[in-house]
Amino acid sequence: MCRWLAYSGSPLLIEDVLYKPAHSLIVQSLHSTLGAETTNGDGFGLGWYGAGETPGVFRSIEPAWNDRNLRELAAHIESPILFAHIRASSGSPVQQTNCHPFRHGRWLWMHNGVIREFSEVKRELVLAVDPSLYPHIEGSTDSEVFFFLALTLGLEDDPPGAVEQAVGLIEEIGRRHGVANPIQMSVATTDGTSVWAFRYSSEHDSRTLFYSTDVVTLRALHPEVELLAKVSDESRLIVSEPLRDLPGAWNTVPESSYGVVQAGQDELRSFTPKVPSRPTAVPAAP
Amino acid sequence: MCRWLAYSGSPLLIEDVLYKPAHSLIVQSLHSTLGAETTNGDGFGLGWYGAGETPGVFRSIEPAWNDRNLRELAAHIESPILFAHIRASSGSPVQQTNCHPFRHGRWLWMHNGVIREFSEVKRELVLAVDPSLYPHIEGSTDSEVFFFLALTLGLEDDPPGAVEQAVGLIEEIGRRHGVANPIQMSVATTDGTSVWAFRYSSEHDSRTLFYSTDVVTLRALHPEVELLAKVSDESRLIVSEPLRDLPGAWNTVPESSYGVVQAGQDELRSFTPKVPSRPTAVPAAP
Amino acid sequence: MCRWLAYSGSPLLIEDVLYKPAHSLIVQSLHSTLGAETTNGDGFGLGWYGAGETPGVFRSIEPAWNDRNLRELAAHIESPILFAHIRASSGSPVQQTNCHPFRHGRWLWMHNGVIREFSEVKRELVLAVDPSLYPHIEGSTDSEVFFFLALTLGLEDDPPGAVEQAVGLIEEIGRRHGVANPIQMSVATTDGTSVWAFRYSSEHDSRTLFYSTDVVTLRALHPEVELLAKVSDESRLIVSEPLRDLPGAWNTVPESSYGVVQAGQDELRSFTPKVPSRPTAVPAAP
Amino acid sequence: MCRWLAYSGSPLLIEDVLYKPAHSLIVQSLHSTLGAETTNGDGFGLGWYGAGETPGVFRSIEPAWNDRNLRELAAHIESPILFAHIRASSGSPVQQTNCHPFRHGRWLWMHNGVIREFSEVKRELVLAVDPSLYPHIEGSTDSEVFFFLALTLGLEDDPPGAVEQAVGLIEEIGRRHGVANPIQMSVATTDGTSVWAFRYSSEHDSRTLFYSTDVVTLRALHPEVELLAKVSDESRLIVSEPLRDLPGAWNTVPESSYGVVQAGQDELRSFTPKVPSRPTAVPAAP
Repeated sequence: MCRWLAYSGSPLLIEDVLYKPAHSLIVQSLHSTLGAETTNGDGFGLGWYGAGETPGVFRSIEPAWNDRNLRELAAHIESPILFAHIRASSGSPVQQTNCHPFRHGRWLWMHNGVIREFSEVKRELVLAVDPSLYPHIEGSTDSEVFFFLALTLGLEDDPPGAVEQAVGLIEEIGRRHGVANPIQMSVATTDGTSVWAFRYSSEHDSRTLFYSTDVVTLRALHPEVELLAKVSDESRLIVSEPLRDLPGAWNTVPESSYGVVQAGQDELRSFTPKVPSRPTAVPAAP
Repeated sequence: MCRWLAYSGSPLLIEDVLYKPAHSLIVQSLHSTLGAETTNGDGFGLGWYGAGETPGVFRSIEPAWNDRNLRELAAHIESPILFAHIRASSGSPVQQTNCHPFRHGRWLWMHNGVIREFSEVKRELVLAVDPSLYPHIEGSTDSEVFFFLALTLGLEDDPPGAVEQAVGLIEEIGRRHGVANPIQMSVATTDGTSVWAFRYSSEHDSRTLFYSTDVVTLRALHPEVELLAKVSDESRLIVSEPLRDLPGAWNTVPESSYGVVQAGQDELRSFTPKVPSRPTAVPAAP
Repeated sequence: MCRWLAYSGSPLLIEDVLYKPAHSLIVQSLHSTLGAETTNGDGFGLGWYGAGETPGVFRSIEPAWNDRNLRELAAHIESPILFAHIRASSGSPVQQTNCHPFRHGRWLWMHNGVIREFSEVKRELVLAVDPSLYPHIEGSTDSEVFFFLALTLGLEDDPPGAVEQAVGLIEEIGRRHGVANPIQMSVATTDGTSVWAFRYSSEHDSRTLFYSTDVVTLRALHPEVELLAKVSDESRLIVSEPLRDLPGAWNTVPESSYGVVQAGQDELRSFTPKVPSRPTAVPAAP
Repeated sequence: MCRWLAYSGSPLLIEDVLYKPAHSLIVQSLHSTLGAETTNGDGFGLGWYGAGETPGVFRSIEPAWNDRNLRELAAHIESPILFAHIRASSGSPVQQTNCHPFRHGRWLWMHNGVIREFSEVKRELVLAVDPSLYPHIEGSTDSEVFFFLALTLGLEDDPPGAVEQAVGLIEEIGRRHGVANPIQMSVATTDGTSVWAFRYSSEHDSRTLFYSTDVVTLRALHPEVELLAKVSDESRLIVSEPLRDLPGAWNTVPESSYGVVQAGQDELRSFTPKVPSRPTAVPAAP
């Protein structure tokens, strides 16, 4: 399992979000309090939107807490959207291509959780990926295959619909293989404009996920927090676990739901997996 | 493309084979003279047979020439069989799971060459891997998929037959996708007892491959070479390019042939790809 | 701070000592229970005696728990002496040259602890290293400078005497700089024949250090432990924290003392720092 | 030896300078044509001025040609000043703290060349570094010690004067140790406003160094080069070897001279080492 954070708002120096909070993601890499593991030291990744058409991605196999390049980038890059992820491998190799976030065009994707019995179901899931997308799978994680299933099923047009179908497919294939609870997930994805965050698990007992209270309210509650003076009113954080102990600041994303951080009013909706209607051929063994 | 060496014979300190020759594989990592690239700095790997049931494998993403751990292991480990490989990536990521040799049970496999238009044909090739073997593919190279095809097609029972079928399949699938010359290869594989080395390319213009002259003859020719006094009569090297400029020491493995280094008389035979008779389903896109 | 283990006895596969115990050093890299930090993920190192004149050293900046090469070496190398160390950096960079054990000729050295206010006293300590040894310092840790001070002061002739003098010097220089408790240490060193292990701190509140009960007694107490059947009577482990919960197996190395594991009777003696008599010039600033 | 480039001018995407030219520094990492070595694969580094007080530094031990994070940063970060360096180690370990550029406050420093017999003279040179700066030396290269000598001798106030004194000191100490030609160097340093570049060697046979022709002239000569349309008139490159074959574009920095790229007219002046007048105590051995 892993920990992640997604920030959307006025451009901030990455370190303001990543290093400065008392229980920052960097601290969580050594001492997570709500995660399935206390240590998340099997690599990390950053995604940000700066110069260039696509988002920048920086991924490393070192633990986040001792990576000097991460500290350098965090102290010298600003971005209006930040995805950051620290990894605790559940078995797949520690290599850059297995670090989150994953990128396709302008899209980023990161995942905390697991597709259970992945080695059992991997072949069928991979076959369901569109053949034109298949060669772009670079690593060996369940999370990346999940991303490519969502892309196959329309992520770029209808993110919630595509993720609901991808999860429906993962559950169907898993159950066909006798897996009781095929998926456990908190997922964030973005196109560089909006951010979608999903909380779901087949057993309806999902990993924690929180979104920050709106900035105007937070400033009134905590005028002493300097960062709040810097950020715009519509700035928002979504996190695996709270970054500081700030009363009134963190709200649970409910079980089986998703949120959208976007221009205008943000939204929170229910999430219901759906088996995709388009055929997903399951070839026989040779 | 890459460079490799395979040693079989009396147990030797790895460094005697890997570092000491004038044009050693370590030198070739910086300055290959016969390779497709002069620099082979995209990782390396060692396979050896020591304590333990399976061979040991040490793989690193650093260039071989500056890796201190490689030098340490080479100076402190002896083995009767040594596989060593230096990599020049043709595009797939530089990560340990993409470094050779690959291992399955007691078998090792390493490859210099390429499956052409691999991103075009990868999905079909991967589907032809036995589903029970599929989850053991860890990296993203053509070479590892080639190994798993050979395993699927009987490598452990009939190595030459399995490799001929794997190549037959790769050529068939490649040509179906319009690839003129689907494969270029020099391959070595071993079960810890015998070593098989193959030289082949669809265009019949294969990368160089050499085997060393038998030790008794070599000792007579070059009594001054100390290493020859250390090794047993049946010791043999197979290499991408000669390790030293020693007249009479190196013999070309002929185009489209393979050699077997084994107990008793070593052999050299012709190599003919064969399309496998067993069905290899090619599923339609979803 | 860090964790380490030293094994001396009949040749064992490294994994028997390093991976198999329930609270192995690999487990401690994620979850140390007695250390100053719970996570020891800032690199690791192995030292062993195999083929070759000097001991082999394998050091990596990855965490021990996810390093596949470490697992490979552990499963394929046997040694009569094993030094293994996992690092939790107190600030100096995570790089191979800062990983323990350090080696000089046939000697290995590893340290858990700290020279306090090291950046204050480093220059003076480094100047006290013999100029002929000085160029061999490769990293930037307090532990390596401590090793070179011990070498300067006669480690190869009288290990306890040299370490007592090195500590005496460190304390003298530290106190001259106003450091209340200049050193905290558990140290192991070996020449490949005997092993010396030291427990000391200026404040007389040293990190834990344990030695295993003699094997004959242990076999009688725990006939069910398979490893005990494999090892010779004079085998011994010295560890930062016990490797398994085995009643009667672990004995505290007393405060301010050292042990020697050697041919014949092992010994346990008191440790008293001594300011070295030979002059250690402290040059003025330029 | 190594290769480097320094850019100063209108803010550019790093990849425009680092990857796009036909004989870019990335190409030189595999195939340098004018360097002492053809391969410069022992790590690399970038320094740039973006958000934050100090310059950002990104350093890696991987070869530049295969580092994906380097490609990411280059495609997503803009800077008005860029220092980039590729390393060919002459023996010191490949670790991030040995990669250039080195940083102190707002200053960056990179070096191609060598202090000869460094292990002989290192102790004396290090002792000549101001004790308050000494603890900031993190690596083990001659180049970093050279930087700290220059800082000790006033780099921040008078860069040319400080470098002349540092070189004078290095030559004096080297000659006292019987080194015929103590230093070979091309050095670049910057405070984020101006850039100084030095070409010198004790034997007056220095490594190549080139500066680009002024942009107005270049645009007239080569209207087809798109990059020239993007950059401001006062933009300038200084490079170990030309980045493309562009007639009239590259001018040799003369032997024993230095250039300053600055607001207003750039300058080219002669360089004369001077033994520093302030005492540099050379302490006796302990």
